[in-house]
Amino acid sequence: MKLKSLHDALIHELKDLHSAETQLTKALPKMAKAASNEELSSALEEHLEETKEHVTRLEDILGELEVSPRGQKCKAMEGLIEEGESNLKEDAPAEVLDALIISGAQKVEHYEIAGYGTARAFALKLGLKDVARVLDKTLEEESAADDKLTEIAESAVNPEAETAA
Amino acid sequence: MKLKSLHDALIHELKDLHSAETQLTKALPKMAKAASNEELSSALEEHLEETKEHVTRLEDILGELEVSPRGQKCKAMEGLIEEGESNLKEDAPAEVLDALIISGAQKVEHYEIAGYGTARAFALKLGLKDVARVLDKTLEEESAADDKLTEIAESAVNPEAETAA
Repeated sequence: MKLKSLHDALIHELKDLHSAETQLTKALPKMAKAASNEELSSALEEHLEETKEHVTRLEDILGELEVSPRGQKCKAMEGLIEEGESNLKEDAPAEVLDALIISGAQKVEHYEIAGYGTARAFALKLGLKDVARVLDKTLEEESAADDKLTEIAESAVNPEAETAA
Repeated sequence: MKLKSLHDALIHELKDLHSAETQLTKALPKMAKAASNEELSSALEEHLEETKEHVTRLEDILGELEVSPRGQKCKAMEGLIEEGESNLKEDAPAEVLDALIISGAQKVEHYEIAGYGTARAFALKLGLKDVARVLDKTLEEESAADDKLTEIAESAVNPEAETAA
């Protein structure tokens, strides 16, 4: 695909996000399963449901733009997930592992915050107000998921984890 | 390295950031060179200087913690850079390419914002106030770099790029 216009760049960004979110639907269940803290595990499971909805929204937008969501792999999310999964294999006490899971999940959220921020800006510049509105809704949910993880980190991760090993 | 404690998790995070920032010092010059917009090119070059300083700060912190910064490759930054460099090869008009460069750079910034946020939180929980203060300084600079890129995107990227191909 040649990127001749900002419209093409928007599609490129949306397809990247579609690949990223799809990869995430496969990674989140593993993270939720590996988490010991119940609040963390529930938050990841709830975010899995949101993520599935985000995939559907992207497919709806791309459908309206008459473009297939397939054919582009998000290399960045691949690296983020690879790093996160290698953390899950660490020989670490439960609280430390939870801290690493939160760290990995927040990096994923920040990738998506940057991606949706860009896609929304492109859509607005192109006058695609309805598309921008849907992207903004997802962006809000990604930010809320990130805030929730910070909240859990504050309450769940204690330095006493140091003595648990 | 086994992660037995939150202290170990902090070191793990700092080494990840050191690898990420080091990779970025090699990627930023290519991005600056590929950018057409002068403000964008200058911003990326200025951020390269900051990034080199961030590497030094991480080496100082790890030195104080008596740990080598080497031996850990940040897979996530590897993926982010791979994706960004593949964008640089796109056959796209200058304004569209600049939009893609900004998008890639903001994803990198967001990775670092998440990473420094986590490392700072770990340091604070461990009572390492001086370490937290240095990490906070870098975090502020990463956020400022992200804001600057948003500003440039607002003024430099126009839908008229559509007619430039």
